[in-house]
Amino acid sequence: MFRAEPVPAARVLNEARALVRPALEETVAGLHPWLAEMAAYSFGWGEGAEAGGKGVRQALALLGARAAGADAAAGVRGAVAVELVHAFSLLHDDIMDGDETRRRRPALWKAYGTGPAVLAGDALFALAVATLAEVPGGVRLLSGTLADLMRGQADDLLFASRPWTGPEAVTPAEYRVMAEGKTGALLGCSLALGALLGGAPRPMAEALDRVGRHAGVAFQLADDVLGVWGRPEVTGKPAGGDLREGKRTYPVLSALASPEGGRLRGLLGAPDRTAEAAALIDAAGGRAAALSEARAHMAAARALLDGLPLEPGAAAELNALLECLADRER
Amino acid sequence: MFRAEPVPAARVLNEARALVRPALEETVAGLHPWLAEMAAYSFGWGEGAEAGGKGVRQALALLGARAAGADAAAGVRGAVAVELVHAFSLLHDDIMDGDETRRRRPALWKAYGTGPAVLAGDALFALAVATLAEVPGGVRLLSGTLADLMRGQADDLLFASRPWTGPEAVTPAEYRVMAEGKTGALLGCSLALGALLGGAPRPMAEALDRVGRHAGVAFQLADDVLGVWGRPEVTGKPAGGDLREGKRTYPVLSALASPEGGRLRGLLGAPDRTAEAAALIDAAGGRAAALSEARAHMAAARALLDGLPLEPGAAAELNALLECLADRER
Repeated sequence: MFRAEPVPAARVLNEARALVRPALEETVAGLHPWLAEMAAYSFGWGEGAEAGGKGVRQALALLGARAAGADAAAGVRGAVAVELVHAFSLLHDDIMDGDETRRRRPALWKAYGTGPAVLAGDALFALAVATLAEVPGGVRLLSGTLADLMRGQADDLLFASRPWTGPEAVTPAEYRVMAEGKTGALLGCSLALGALLGGAPRPMAEALDRVGRHAGVAFQLADDVLGVWGRPEVTGKPAGGDLREGKRTYPVLSALASPEGGRLRGLLGAPDRTAEAAALIDAAGGRAAALSEARAHMAAARALLDGLPLEPGAAAELNALLECLADRER
Repeated sequence: MFRAEPVPAARVLNEARALVRPALEETVAGLHPWLAEMAAYSFGWGEGAEAGGKGVRQALALLGARAAGADAAAGVRGAVAVELVHAFSLLHDDIMDGDETRRRRPALWKAYGTGPAVLAGDALFALAVATLAEVPGGVRLLSGTLADLMRGQADDLLFASRPWTGPEAVTPAEYRVMAEGKTGALLGCSLALGALLGGAPRPMAEALDRVGRHAGVAFQLADDVLGVWGRPEVTGKPAGGDLREGKRTYPVLSALASPEGGRLRGLLGAPDRTAEAAALIDAAGGRAAALSEARAHMAAARALLDGLPLEPGAAAELNALLECLADRER
């Protein structure tokens, strides 16, 4: 017997994009023309393929529906909603974080101004709510997700003003809660919303929500590793950017708790010594700790998946997608 | 027979505030503590009474429930939702418009920073949606309102970049659509949501929605008049501010279409000649046209109200509240 060919995540993502894009475009076309123009910019429509996002959330929504035994088409409405929420949160986060670049182009607030970008984000948020208004249980699910998203973003903003060390320092446990809110909640919502639309029983939808949350924490940890050691040509961001900005990332928090913590502390305020800091964090085990923590969350996600009576084809594609989420360099 | 005493609008507003405040505080307490702190600031809690808004929208929601024959308490959930939406829109509008002062205090974005104010607005928005998640028809109603709100705000922002005269100039008809979206939609939603919660039949809720929309346009027109001729000690804003900022307000649009339009055009770009411009707009009939248009919208609102089988006590209070909305100097 041959082993089954691994499912390429790229194919899953491409198929999801092709299925969801027309519905997403139709939804956005209902906006005020100026807001629709800003939405199109933020989705990267009309630009090269790489201008758009990978569309992980829409793919998860379709897989949620398929996992429950329905057609992927049953999840399209949920896919549209979560992509709208994701786009809204990127627009507003870029303003909050002062990030001037998004997917190798000027962030919307740099291209159109802060006020218009705030409004465009609001409009996408409202559109996501409208998309789910008639889905039983949809708005309740989305509301919980949004609350977690805001909490995660609030923590992330506040972390920056806390000391690196001492009793007020950010703990790895606080980091996990932040990452689950900021990144995991919407991934979980994507799966659960798709499952809901596909007619899944409630416990299955709830378990898929937890799968997405674990995957989100793993994704954020992988992102932290890329933020320190990622090659700029892959990440599209300058090397060592997270260190220069003083972000409380997991590798740094972990290394600070090691015997090298004192030496590292002295380097963190020096924007011209990020290469040295990165090497020290690595030597202190910060990178390994983040990757190990990411693996633990992916294992938890897979264990949950294995316990669910999912449609086998969808389960295979879901595993492939989660794999690719946590291994961002591929 | 004595004529019935007119109902004082201030009493209606005070009673609404007293009934809604505990529910609003409880809802906001569910937020991340930092977001709850910013929400309390924006509601003016803990400050003097004048720091908070009048609470017109919450009063309309309670009156909508009572108009349908239910207790005011039936409308509280709707009142909480519309006050949250109103607070969210003020927070984001102040950022978009660069307004540094709100109710005689620094706007939230001046007090906490732009990023935190964007996030606080998002959190209030999400909380409003969560509040209505279990109200049948509530999210659909709110979604339509939000879409109108975003359209109105988009138009208002874009108006500023259009010429004062010529084929590209803003028309009074465009102004009315903008004012209905920006101000009328949420007032209409407040009434309709209360009516919905009070068990009103759908046509009554829809008619009340239109009542609120007319009242909103009248309110905006009255606001425009205050923006040019209001006394700073009443409005809390500098005299002639709207003229200095080049806002496309109804008195100006109307005066530009008069024979004095050419002379007025020459004054509009001169920030030190606002007193002269205000006098010319008045002489050209701009103030009278705005007040006449406001009266027409209030008459339309009253005619709609008179045709509805509303609970009489609620109808009287509603009339008093609308009266006070359109006559802001009182």
